[in-house]
Amino acid sequence: MKLDALFLLTLKDIYFAERQLLKALPKMARAAQADSLKQAFTDHREQTQGQVERLQRVFEILGKRAAGQTCEAILGLIQECEELLEEAPTPSAVRDAGLIACGQAVKHYEIARYTTLAAWAALQGQKEIASLLSENLAEECAADALLTEVAEDSVHAAAKAEA
Amino acid sequence: MKLDALFLLTLKDIYFAERQLLKALPKMARAAQADSLKQAFTDHREQTQGQVERLQRVFEILGKRAAGQTCEAILGLIQECEELLEEAPTPSAVRDAGLIACGQAVKHYEIARYTTLAAWAALQGQKEIASLLSENLAEECAADALLTEVAEDSVHAAAKAEA
Repeated sequence: MKLDALFLLTLKDIYFAERQLLKALPKMARAAQADSLKQAFTDHREQTQGQVERLQRVFEILGKRAAGQTCEAILGLIQECEELLEEAPTPSAVRDAGLIACGQAVKHYEIARYTTLAAWAALQGQKEIASLLSENLAEECAADALLTEVAEDSVHAAAKAEA
Repeated sequence: MKLDALFLLTLKDIYFAERQLLKALPKMARAAQADSLKQAFTDHREQTQGQVERLQRVFEILGKRAAGQTCEAILGLIQECEELLEEAPTPSAVRDAGLIACGQAVKHYEIARYTTLAAWAALQGQKEIASLLSENLAEECAADALLTEVAEDSVHAAAKAEA
């Protein structure tokens, strides 16, 4: 296997993952109790749409059809989120804390993938592609930091009080 | 669901994940071509053993039996690694780059989980537990950084040359 083939495989993996998230984020927003968390998931849904479009541009630059490849990791992460909602069937600050944890695990998966893909693109001298992937990476890092902020400002104290 | 129950559920998830990694890391070390990557996976196997022991200590402090709970995310991450080895059946620098990517995705999962668990322990005033989890977190961050170093020093140039 050559580096360009490994790159394409990994690109298809994150493309699949982002499109799964487009479906999962509205459910997470509906499940959230705190308004700031609902808003964070809703805003990130919109941001994810822009990330999917950047990935489509990367496929286009490579002259390849935009196509996903099943990403078992994101399916596992989304399943963990569904299990949380089964374990905690009613809205609460504790459930919000769990939703934030799920969201941050997903963000970290994407951070790992975009860091790798941007490095491989740079290694191959593909500056425009590296730049598009770095934009997605920066957004994922900001989304992770925002979830920490929501946890600290609006969720953790209430979750502790429920105990 | 109360915060302590959510904490215990997430603790069991990462305990399961770390124990899966004890089995996966020797396979990753055997699959690696670069000596520095073999060494990184082998050393991290030993470090993971210490992390499992810290988690057992956390269960002990909580007065709970150390037990895992199936973590779909880590199973997905390990499956992605196995798929890489199927797609790239012979050792090469490109396969090493893929192994590093798999390893870093796993590290990021653990970073997300330990960050959350340490924050929840601190929130509940459990200082010793927060400290044990922060030790694991610091090791995972260092392991992630080491993999970036191995990629840059020993793998990426060779992977590009194979293209």
